Amino acid sequence: MKALAILGSTGSIGTSTLDIVEGLPEQFRVAALAAGSNLDRLEVQVRRYRPALVAVAREAGGRELARRLGAGGTEVCWGPEGLRRAAAESGADMVVSAIVGAAGLAPTAAAVQAGKDVALANKESLVMAGELVTREARARGVRILPVDSEHSAIFQCLGGNGARQVRRLVLTASGGPFRGRPRGTFATITPEEALRHPTWSMGKKITIDSATLMNKGLEVIEAHWLFGLPVAQVDVIIHPQSIVHSLVEFVDGSLLAQLGVPDMRVPIQYALTHPERCENAVPRLALDQMAGLTFEAVDREKFPCLDLAYAAASAGGSAPAVLNAANEVAVQQFLNHRIGFDEISTVIHKALDAHPARPLGSIQDVLEVDREVRERLEKH
Amino acid sequence: MKALAILGSTGSIGTSTLDIVEGLPEQFRVAALAAGSNLDRLEVQVRRYRPALVAVAREAGGRELARRLGAGGTEVCWGPEGLRRAAAESGADMVVSAIVGAAGLAPTAAAVQAGKDVALANKESLVMAGELVTREARARGVRILPVDSEHSAIFQCLGGNGARQVRRLVLTASGGPFRGRPRGTFATITPEEALRHPTWSMGKKITIDSATLMNKGLEVIEAHWLFGLPVAQVDVIIHPQSIVHSLVEFVDGSLLAQLGVPDMRVPIQYALTHPERCENAVPRLALDQMAGLTFEAVDREKFPCLDLAYAAASAGGSAPAVLNAANEVAVQQFLNHRIGFDEISTVIHKALDAHPARPLGSIQDVLEVDREVRERLEKH
Repeated sequence: MKALAILGSTGSIGTSTLDIVEGLPEQFRVAALAAGSNLDRLEVQVRRYRPALVAVAREAGGRELARRLGAGGTEVCWGPEGLRRAAAESGADMVVSAIVGAAGLAPTAAAVQAGKDVALANKESLVMAGELVTREARARGVRILPVDSEHSAIFQCLGGNGARQVRRLVLTASGGPFRGRPRGTFATITPEEALRHPTWSMGKKITIDSATLMNKGLEVIEAHWLFGLPVAQVDVIIHPQSIVHSLVEFVDGSLLAQLGVPDMRVPIQYALTHPERCENAVPRLALDQMAGLTFEAVDREKFPCLDLAYAAASAGGSAPAVLNAANEVAVQQFLNHRIGFDEISTVIHKALDAHPARPLGSIQDVLEVDREVRERLEKH
Repeated sequence: MKALAILGSTGSIGTSTLDIVEGLPEQFRVAALAAGSNLDRLEVQVRRYRPALVAVAREAGGRELARRLGAGGTEVCWGPEGLRRAAAESGADMVVSAIVGAAGLAPTAAAVQAGKDVALANKESLVMAGELVTREARARGVRILPVDSEHSAIFQCLGGNGARQVRRLVLTASGGPFRGRPRGTFATITPEEALRHPTWSMGKKITIDSATLMNKGLEVIEAHWLFGLPVAQVDVIIHPQSIVHSLVEFVDGSLLAQLGVPDMRVPIQYALTHPERCENAVPRLALDQMAGLTFEAVDREKFPCLDLAYAAASAGGSAPAVLNAANEVAVQQFLNHRIGFDEISTVIHKALDAHPARPLGSIQDVLEVDREVRERLEKH
């Protein structure tokens, strides 16, 4: 039986992970849970799964949860130290890293440092600190298993084959809600429009990233670190049906693609059960009932965030962390109606110019860059 | 360097195999060639690749080739014993089994018996004698690597994963030239119409099999033996674009598909280089230039050969050999304008009824069944 620490347990990935645990009770148990502000859901989860440890992002929330739970088997902790303990000290065999955004980096790094295998949904860990995290993982023999549907697809297609046999990785993108919308009208896009994603139901930040294609940019950087290929060998293609979750093109001209209904339980479960696969309640893909599967090139002028991500990855060092921090701030500003949809990329572009790439020696360096960028942007 | 014996060297698979050898001269050399009646091409091949042994199907052809080649480094042999020697005694590490039809069985079985790895294009070896051939291969540690594009696709998608993780294999079929033609007009189909295949350029026999979907039926039986799954777990789906060469659906709802331009050099090369992959001159698949990829169920009433193949596989024993022999005779009768297109399945159906399934103890038993069926049918 594998013991899991689920960081971000009340979010979309976290609750799907718990669904899988429900379905495979002989394979998994919950050693720790960690969440942000959804105390009600977290309380229900603690009562149901009885983890040894539960961490809450903020102290007030932690004290409130402790009060609600009363004396019992579960220790309640909070703050960065609480998250670190949930990641590293709960007795888990595997950490499901599903906290959204930069806040996921420190606990993910702590899990790797503690020698825990990581099922990684928090792409920022690799975007901001890919070199540090993957080097540490290699040194400690830690496996980082992708949870993102695209990276899981590539992981499945590679089937253990090394980067040497790969010509390129091809990440598919639904294209988001504005694929067909004229570029000239992008300034008038409202947060409400941007939050309507055609296929996947996700958190707000990721949904906006999906609309700007920054999500794909971050995934390109993540794929680069996960699979050890230069970003020049990581392509993006629009696939509006979201059935093909990504592809690998091999040097001999053969491509493998992973397909399925858009259901996050498949990639999450594969990360948990790899190299095994288990039955589940995911609906089957009815190949003969589908609309045709189509692919088209990305309009890179319309979605400049993608090129910004490639540029940051090529610059290396701190640049991807700058990209990520600036994007988080810009998305929040857009959601707060403070900037237009088309200005998200402008904010990021300016931040990359204002913070030239520098080498990163430690996770502390990364977090320092993150802080600098946010402070500078929030002054404006 | 791997030494190859190429059986059926002047046919479509054989010449593509030699193309690959040309492109990878440091990896492969030709130890033996074998062919049927195209002496001119065979002579050119012998002069170019200088195999130790060359076999010709019939004695007259063998003597003629020996005369043309004169004294030299290549020994010329002929007939069944010549083919057997090319398969088993040429010093090859791997035998490319690409003789079309039932004639490929004995040399393939001889290669397996001699402990040679087999790159298998001759599907009849597994259709007629799958149990005997795969049992012998297991006993001798011989690898049977698929060359058919569909089976290569499945082999690549499986990536070493066992049958236990598989819900079903899905073989794709272009649907042939008559997918859209009303069933009522099938009696009037001419051989010339049936020989116009929409995507693959192949020999006559296989092209007709492709039009009746018997090709897919034979592939279902082949997949059953290659991958060790009951035929009930091998499905067929129409995919007119011939870009997805087949798929594997796993128990967790994930599917892997292999894609590429329709070019036999990809699966042939993969069989030769497995588990490595090598660069080649095969055109790249331009995902964003393709028409949409569509899938539809097979109209089984329109293409009864498919159900006959499932029925023969389920009956087991000699039934698939009966199916195969009856189909070979019926296709030849159709090509000779002796029966209509719609009568091909009738001939096979009657043959299955006339030759009840019986156990097969040896390759000789299989060849005896084959002979019986042909003799009975040719009397009519």
